[in-house]
Amino acid sequence: MQNKDFLDFSVKLADLSGKIIRKYFRHEVFAEYKEAESPIVTIADKEVEAALREAIEKRYPDHGINGEEYGIKAPDAEYKWVLDPIDGTIAFTCGKPIFGTLISLMRKDKYLIGIIDQPILKERWIGTGGETLFNGARTKTSGITDIKKARLATTTAAMFKSESQKKSFQALSDCVHVTTFGGDCYNYALLAGGTIDIVIERTLKLHDYAALIPVIEGAGGIITDWNGKPVNSNGDVVACASKELHNIVIEKISGA
Amino acid sequence: MQNKDFLDFSVKLADLSGKIIRKYFRHEVFAEYKEAESPIVTIADKEVEAALREAIEKRYPDHGINGEEYGIKAPDAEYKWVLDPIDGTIAFTCGKPIFGTLISLMRKDKYLIGIIDQPILKERWIGTGGETLFNGARTKTSGITDIKKARLATTTAAMFKSESQKKSFQALSDCVHVTTFGGDCYNYALLAGGTIDIVIERTLKLHDYAALIPVIEGAGGIITDWNGKPVNSNGDVVACASKELHNIVIEKISGA
Repeated sequence: MQNKDFLDFSVKLADLSGKIIRKYFRHEVFAEYKEAESPIVTIADKEVEAALREAIEKRYPDHGINGEEYGIKAPDAEYKWVLDPIDGTIAFTCGKPIFGTLISLMRKDKYLIGIIDQPILKERWIGTGGETLFNGARTKTSGITDIKKARLATTTAAMFKSESQKKSFQALSDCVHVTTFGGDCYNYALLAGGTIDIVIERTLKLHDYAALIPVIEGAGGIITDWNGKPVNSNGDVVACASKELHNIVIEKISGA
Repeated sequence: MQNKDFLDFSVKLADLSGKIIRKYFRHEVFAEYKEAESPIVTIADKEVEAALREAIEKRYPDHGINGEEYGIKAPDAEYKWVLDPIDGTIAFTCGKPIFGTLISLMRKDKYLIGIIDQPILKERWIGTGGETLFNGARTKTSGITDIKKARLATTTAAMFKSESQKKSFQALSDCVHVTTFGGDCYNYALLAGGTIDIVIERTLKLHDYAALIPVIEGAGGIITDWNGKPVNSNGDVVACASKELHNIVIEKISGA
């Protein structure tokens, strides 16, 4: 059974990344900028991605790879591993244990497997679209449908740059129950776990969102772009705990 | 030795609060608003503060108490316990384990003891002004003096309301290495631990900042208002990893 093999292997990749990250967490790891305005990167990000790529190349030499740090290999391969060694490098650099390693497997345009791994807290969400496991047990979104009860999350309000984006975010924040900042991929993991109900972000890249899709969908949530279409390279993402909540949110923000 | 007794007792209070909070974390705890525009509160906040007050009243019946949820008892007492059962109630409600319980003891206007306790991660910072312990071991700030290398933290940029406050924060954020959002008291704990270098906030109340002062100062950091004066009831706070860094930050923001 090939999918079982892929799943077992992706868990091995998550174990491997965690070992490396725990070595560096809260130790002196000065983060560099790849270039002006770009995200930061540390030796931990690089070492993790190099190790994961080596393991994939050894086990599945004909598979493609798309990683944040070392780019794209074999873009036309049937199977493709999408990797973000540390999503939330700023949080990692500040010693906050709510970043994550993102590992996913795609077959052509389909998201087969997504893992969000928090190696310090030893928390792992594994999604296959059909179901999502948190540390081995089935997990579900809250299913909340009332926006007034919803807990909204975004990493930073600074990602809403245009006036219409700012307005959309503010309108949403004004009608939900509470808004929490920071969190990166950990917000999506908590949405799958039922304690966050809406995550809204912009400018996500494939390596940021590929793993989130099977995790959110497997937990009964919805994740789309701001117009309710499949998440795509424009990088706009909105994830919700229920279809009803998602309809309300999209109505408030679409066109922004 | 009275101070040793106080310290042992404050540790017992932190143990007690942690037991209650762990019972509620990531379980259904709907947060209420005390009133419009006010912070949220959950059954966990209330149960923790009630338990701590009961323990204090039993052990030190003549001591004062100032707690976020149940107000002030004996404001003129020589010794006063200042309590915030859950600092970061929004993070708690969202299932993020980076809130904290704040417990502090004041003698008149002097901050004798401060505890920042994170009961899910079992992380505890205890400061006495002279030293700060993280889970029993001495801890120090990073000592960073170069603002270009500094990691800046604030819970939400929405706390900077006036144009001059927004400008000050933006100016600071533009010249530091990275800026992280969310975190509440946990940011100050990480500053004492050496992985965050500047925390800047507004509108903190005594129960928000009393415990932070001995923790930050005991770790070699500086914590003042935005003009470099002692933190006071205006609630403006800036904490830094070194005196040199603090001078630079105050110059950028004072008068805002």
